[in-house]
Amino acid sequence: MAGDKTYIDISRAKCEQRDRLIRDEWKISQKLALGNNVLEVPRTCGVLSEREINITEYNDALDIIERIRQQVYTAEEVALAFCKRAAIAQQLTNCLTEIFFEEAIERARQLDKERAVNPSTPLKPLHGLPISLKDSFNIPGLDSTIGMTYFANKPATEYSALPKLLLDLGAVLYCKTNVPQTMMTADSDNNVFGRTLNPSNLKLTAGGSSGGEGSLIAMKGSVLGIGTDIAGSIRIPSVCNGIYGARPSSGIVPFAGQQSPEDPGMPGIEVVAGPMAISMRACSFFMKTIMSAEPWRYDSSCLHLRWQGQLNSRKPRIGVVFDDGLYTPFPPVRRAIQEAAQKLRDSGVDVVELRLPNVAEAVGITYGMFALDGCQFVQDLIKAGKEPEVESVKRVNLAAIPKSSLQDYMDLNAGRRKLQAVYHDFWLGNNLDALILPPAPQTATPFDEWGPISYTMLWNFLDYPATIIPTGRVQESDVVDGEESALYSEADLKNYKLYDSTETYRDAPLSIQVVGMRQEDEALAEIAGLVDSILNHSETG
Amino acid sequence: MAGDKTYIDISRAKCEQRDRLIRDEWKISQKLALGNNVLEVPRTCGVLSEREINITEYNDALDIIERIRQQVYTAEEVALAFCKRAAIAQQLTNCLTEIFFEEAIERARQLDKERAVNPSTPLKPLHGLPISLKDSFNIPGLDSTIGMTYFANKPATEYSALPKLLLDLGAVLYCKTNVPQTMMTADSDNNVFGRTLNPSNLKLTAGGSSGGEGSLIAMKGSVLGIGTDIAGSIRIPSVCNGIYGARPSSGIVPFAGQQSPEDPGMPGIEVVAGPMAISMRACSFFMKTIMSAEPWRYDSSCLHLRWQGQLNSRKPRIGVVFDDGLYTPFPPVRRAIQEAAQKLRDSGVDVVELRLPNVAEAVGITYGMFALDGCQFVQDLIKAGKEPEVESVKRVNLAAIPKSSLQDYMDLNAGRRKLQAVYHDFWLGNNLDALILPPAPQTATPFDEWGPISYTMLWNFLDYPATIIPTGRVQESDVVDGEESALYSEADLKNYKLYDSTETYRDAPLSIQVVGMRQEDEALAEIAGLVDSILNHSETG
Repeated sequence: MAGDKTYIDISRAKCEQRDRLIRDEWKISQKLALGNNVLEVPRTCGVLSEREINITEYNDALDIIERIRQQVYTAEEVALAFCKRAAIAQQLTNCLTEIFFEEAIERARQLDKERAVNPSTPLKPLHGLPISLKDSFNIPGLDSTIGMTYFANKPATEYSALPKLLLDLGAVLYCKTNVPQTMMTADSDNNVFGRTLNPSNLKLTAGGSSGGEGSLIAMKGSVLGIGTDIAGSIRIPSVCNGIYGARPSSGIVPFAGQQSPEDPGMPGIEVVAGPMAISMRACSFFMKTIMSAEPWRYDSSCLHLRWQGQLNSRKPRIGVVFDDGLYTPFPPVRRAIQEAAQKLRDSGVDVVELRLPNVAEAVGITYGMFALDGCQFVQDLIKAGKEPEVESVKRVNLAAIPKSSLQDYMDLNAGRRKLQAVYHDFWLGNNLDALILPPAPQTATPFDEWGPISYTMLWNFLDYPATIIPTGRVQESDVVDGEESALYSEADLKNYKLYDSTETYRDAPLSIQVVGMRQEDEALAEIAGLVDSILNHSETG
Repeated sequence: MAGDKTYIDISRAKCEQRDRLIRDEWKISQKLALGNNVLEVPRTCGVLSEREINITEYNDALDIIERIRQQVYTAEEVALAFCKRAAIAQQLTNCLTEIFFEEAIERARQLDKERAVNPSTPLKPLHGLPISLKDSFNIPGLDSTIGMTYFANKPATEYSALPKLLLDLGAVLYCKTNVPQTMMTADSDNNVFGRTLNPSNLKLTAGGSSGGEGSLIAMKGSVLGIGTDIAGSIRIPSVCNGIYGARPSSGIVPFAGQQSPEDPGMPGIEVVAGPMAISMRACSFFMKTIMSAEPWRYDSSCLHLRWQGQLNSRKPRIGVVFDDGLYTPFPPVRRAIQEAAQKLRDSGVDVVELRLPNVAEAVGITYGMFALDGCQFVQDLIKAGKEPEVESVKRVNLAAIPKSSLQDYMDLNAGRRKLQAVYHDFWLGNNLDALILPPAPQTATPFDEWGPISYTMLWNFLDYPATIIPTGRVQESDVVDGEESALYSEADLKNYKLYDSTETYRDAPLSIQVVGMRQEDEALAEIAGLVDSILNHSETG
C-alpha cells in the first residue's frame, strides 16, 4: 500500500520517474563534471548540436521570440534545444522536479503547424517561448510537492493562474524546478528530490526558495523562469547564480492557485510571483507583457494596474545604501556596491548616499508576520509526510516559534502601516527614482549557511519592487579582512566570519539590488534597464 | 475642571460653540419649518439673495468650477453663498459638526486675489470649489469627535491626507458633517451633536454614517461632500436623501490620517472615502481629479492606479438583480429597480436578469470581520467618554459580540478570498459592464429602524465600486401589499412590515445602485453616467 511507503521510498520513486523522462541520448557522463564550476559543460558535453548551442547560449527571451517570429528558428527546435539543455542542467545540478519535455515539444510543433496553416493570424506575444516554473505552480497531471513528501503523488487537477495566462500568451512550458522543504529557507534541499547545486561552484548553495530556477537559468537551460518571493526567494537564488531576477509589487503578477505551505487565510506579508532571466530586458518584457494582458482576469486578487508605455524624461536620482545597519557586507559585496555607485556617478546619474530608517523594527515585524500561526501549518505538513526536517529547516527551529494572538497580529499590522508611511516619506523626501543596495551581506555561501535576509525582506515588508542585477564574481583581490569590520552585533560578526577565503567563494557571483517605489514597477523596469546598461553594457562598464 | 464635565455639559458647550460660528444675519425663524419636507426653506427663508439662490440651486460642482473659471462668479461669493446655505441647512436638520465658514471665505478671497495678481497662472482643477467633509477627516485646530464624547475638545494637529490633497487642488473647505456615535450605525445621532434630520421628511432617518453630508447636500448647502463607507456609509445617506454617492474601490481615494473608532491595526473590510453630490458627473469628476493627481503621494496605502481617459466603445451589458435573496424590497423600491431596468432595455442596453451567489455566506463573513475584536475598542471609547449608548448603537448590542481568535480571522479571510473568486467568475462569466440592484430593501425609515445592509455591504466585502443614482420618490401608488411578499425569513418579514403606509414614507427618495468591477472605477463612472442619463436626463426618462 502507498500509505506504508517511507519518505525514502517515495523520493526514490519520484526521482526515478523524473529521470526516465530524460531521453537516453541526452544523458551525459558524470565524469564531465570535474571541477566545481560546471557552467561550460552543456557546451562541451556533446549532447547539444552546434545549432542547439547557439540557440540556448546566445539568445535571451526577446531574441528567441524575435527569431521564431522571423522564422530563423522554429518553435519546435527551440523547445527541443531548451529541453535538452535543461536535461543536462538537471544531471549536473539536480535543478528539476517535474519534467514534461515531450508535451512541450509537441505543443511547440502544434504552434508551428497552426502558424503554417494560418500565416496571417497575429502571433501571440510569447509565441513559442519556453518558460520554466518553480515547483509551486500547478499544472494538471503533475505533482507540486514543494519539497514535501506529503504532497507527492497528488497530481494537480487545475492550472495555477499564471501558467494558464502564459499558455494563453503562446508560451511553451516544459519543466518545474526545485525548492527547499517548506519553501521557507534559502537552501533548495528537500527529502523528495534532494539538493539543487550551484553550477558556478558546486560547493556553494544555489539559494532558495526558487533555487532550481536559479541554477537552471545559470546553466542556460532556460532563458526565462518564474519564481516566487516572500522574503527574497526570487532574489537570493538570482544572487547565488549570477542571473537577473525581479520581485514585483504584490498583486501585479497572478499568483492564485499555487501549492502553499501556509494556511489559505494567512494574512501579512504578500508572496509574489516574478521573473528570473539571463537579461534585464527579459524581466522587464515579462512585466510589460503580463501587465498588458489584463492579468486580473486570471486572478481575482490582481490589481488593475496597466503598463503605461511612458518613459521618464528627467535625470534619474538614485539613492545608494552601502549596508543596512544590521549586517556588514562581505568584502566582495562591498566592492560590488561601491563600484556600481561609482559607475553610475561617472555616467552622470545623480547618486545620493543614504541610510535606511527603522530596519531592525521592520525586520522584527516581518518575522512576526511570517510566524503568526507559530508555523503550525507547515509543521503539520511535515508530520503528515512522515519525513524529517532537512538541515536548513532544522536551523529555523520551527517548534520554538510561538503562536500569535489576533491582537498581536493587529499590533504588527499597525506597526507595518506606520513604517510603510515612514519609508514613503523617506522615498518622496529624497526625491528618489530608485535605490541601489547589496541584495545580501553575503554571496552564495557553503550549504545551509545562508545568513541574514534583512536586505531582501525589507522590500517584501514595504511591498516595493526590487530587481537583482549581476555585476561580476568574487576575485582574488577580495581578500578576507579583519573581524573589526563587523561591529553591529554578535550575529553580524558570526555571518561576516563565514567569508573565510577567496578559495571557498571561488566564482561566486556578485550582484546589486535595485529598488523602486511600490507599484511603480514600470518605472523600476526603466531605471533598472539604465543601471544594467551602465554597469554591464557600456564601453567603460 | 474639564475632566468633571458630564457628556451633557460637553455637548452643550460644543453645540453652543458651533452655533456661535453662524453669523446672526444667517439665522432663520424656526417657524419656517412647518411641514416635514424642508427642502424649499433655503429658497424662501429670506437669508439668501437671488444671486445666492442661483449659485447654490442651479449649479453642480462642475458648473461652479466653470463659472468661477469664466469669472461669472468669484470664489468668494461662491464660498459665501454655500456657507450661508449650509448655515440654513444646519438650523433645519442639524447636519454640521465643525464650522469654519470665516476661514473658508477668507481662503476664497485669497484665491481670487492670487488669480488677479497672477492671471496667467493656470487654475488648479478644483479652484474655488467648496467641499464639505464628514466629521472623521482631520483639519488642524478642529475636533473630529465622530460622535463620541471622548474625542471632544481634542483638536487635530495634522490634516488627513484627503483634505490636504483637496486644498492643494484649489478646493475651499468650510464645514464638517454629522455622524452616528461610533460611526457604526445608519442613524446619524450621537451625544455630542444630537441627531441629523432628513430634509425630505423630518420624521425619517437621514441615514448614516455620512448622514450629515447626505442631509447637507440634499439641502444644497454643498454641491460636493466627502463621506466614508465600510458597509454603506456613503450610499445609505445618499439613498435616504435622494442624492448621488459613490463608494470607490479601496486604495483609490486617500483615506489616511482619519479619526477612527477602530484599532489602528484592524484588518479586514476596507473603509474608503468617496464623493457625495447633487449630480452623477460630479462624482465621476471627483474620481477623475483624484486619480489624476497621484493620490499615493498623500497616502502610502493608495494604489498607483491612474485615470486612463479611455472610453468603452462596446454596447453595454448590465446585469439587473431585483432582490438579494435575503431581504424583500419595499414596494416602492421594487418599482424603482423594475422601472430602471425597463428604461435601460428601452434605450437599447443589453440587460440580463441575474441572481447573486452566496450572499448569506458573504454577509456572515463581513459581520465576522467587522467584529474581530468583539468591538472592544469602540466600547472602550464610549466608556472613556462616560456617555450612554444612543438608541441605534444600543440595538447593535455591542457587549454581546464575541472576540475572534487569529484562526477565526484566517478562516474568515480564506472564506472572503474564495467568495471574491466566485464573484469574479460570476462577473466575467456573465460578461458584465455593470450590475444594477436596489441599494437597500427599504427607503429611509423612521428613526433607528434602518434595516438590513446586505445590499450595500456585499460590495465592501468584494471591494467593488458602487454608485447611488436617485430615481424618484415614494408615490401614493406604492401601496402596502401583503406580508406574503416577504418570505425569506422572520427578519425579512419584520423589515418588510416597516413599510406600513405611503404617508409614513411621504417624499422618501428612491434610488438604484450601480456596481462595477473591482478597481474599474473609471469604467463604472462611464456606465453610471450612461445609466443616469437614461433614467434622469433623457426625454422619455
